[in-house]
Amino acid sequence: MNTIIIGIAGGTGSGKTTLAKRLKERFGAHEVSLISHDNYYKRHDELSYDQRCQLNYDHPDAFDTDLMVQQLSQLKAGKAILCPVYDYTTHNRSEQTVTVDAAPVVIVEGILLFAEPRLCELFDLKVFVDTDADERILRRIIRDVKKRGRTLDSVAAQYRNTVKPMHEAFVEPSKRKADLIVPEGGKNPAALEMLFRYVADHLRRQ
Amino acid sequence: MNTIIIGIAGGTGSGKTTLAKRLKERFGAHEVSLISHDNYYKRHDELSYDQRCQLNYDHPDAFDTDLMVQQLSQLKAGKAILCPVYDYTTHNRSEQTVTVDAAPVVIVEGILLFAEPRLCELFDLKVFVDTDADERILRRIIRDVKKRGRTLDSVAAQYRNTVKPMHEAFVEPSKRKADLIVPEGGKNPAALEMLFRYVADHLRRQ
Repeated sequence: MNTIIIGIAGGTGSGKTTLAKRLKERFGAHEVSLISHDNYYKRHDELSYDQRCQLNYDHPDAFDTDLMVQQLSQLKAGKAILCPVYDYTTHNRSEQTVTVDAAPVVIVEGILLFAEPRLCELFDLKVFVDTDADERILRRIIRDVKKRGRTLDSVAAQYRNTVKPMHEAFVEPSKRKADLIVPEGGKNPAALEMLFRYVADHLRRQ
Repeated sequence: MNTIIIGIAGGTGSGKTTLAKRLKERFGAHEVSLISHDNYYKRHDELSYDQRCQLNYDHPDAFDTDLMVQQLSQLKAGKAILCPVYDYTTHNRSEQTVTVDAAPVVIVEGILLFAEPRLCELFDLKVFVDTDADERILRRIIRDVKKRGRTLDSVAAQYRNTVKPMHEAFVEPSKRKADLIVPEGGKNPAALEMLFRYVADHLRRQ
């Protein structure tokens, strides 16, 4: 099997997850595997729950890059992996894992993927989803308030305190590593069609 | 024949022409036709040479959009066109025309393509080539001084007087119309490969 890894990055609310899911849905689970960077948040058993709540999860150092590099390399070599599962309720890695089967196309999505040079090296195609900051915060507010039951004030505080400064320090500069910039993500039918054809062409060559 | 039109826009020195040429070279002349927006500069027989030299060629109004819309529509309908030829020595449309045959893929390249809504409507895919302004002026200086024998001072004056202000007023905002943004243009192998596959897939469907 000849496996390619497509990295899809972009700020919070950019539409990168929608784009990644559309790609996966279009093809079968045997053909496209999808992995989220969030699952590779570092394990912090040595900290209390309150201490873990204080960590900056919007910084590249929050991720276990060693493990992700190792597992992506395994997938590239055609081997299945046991992907870690992050538990948002405890702010720690859970004891569960999910088997991700080897597939000809592996899609990895995450805000900070391209801020990590060792991950960039593993991607055959780096797609950055670029959406205006006002639209992104609107989407985040609607998601967090309506679907996750959070208050407007807490969403605003988190956005101003960590999400926005980390976006400007790490996410926006990482756009320069992208091969392709897709405005609006999953809501961009022409870009989606182009990625469909790219993946279909790779599958045809197997 | 099912014809698609791909618009490739971007600032001076962005690499859009290189990208367009690479795409054309990869396929045959029967499969891909290439048209430059520059050939559709308006005819100005009513003005003297000196008056024509004073015109602003970096503004969307410099182009004969009526003719271009008409001819792109003809190509889309599978008919050949007689494309005008612009004469830079007289700053006017020449008496010559070039026959552009109907083809399944028509590529149109030009700085200001996406600043014109009537052209945007005709494109099946809108690609904006995005390159840093410093790199773009460097490429323009090297091209104009080394290959076209112009002085550094004249290149700098033209850039500051019209190219840069028109870029900021019309080219940069037109990026918002793009389906896909390609950093670095012809020097971006991953994006080039993606566009190759997109075109090849369209040709396969004929």
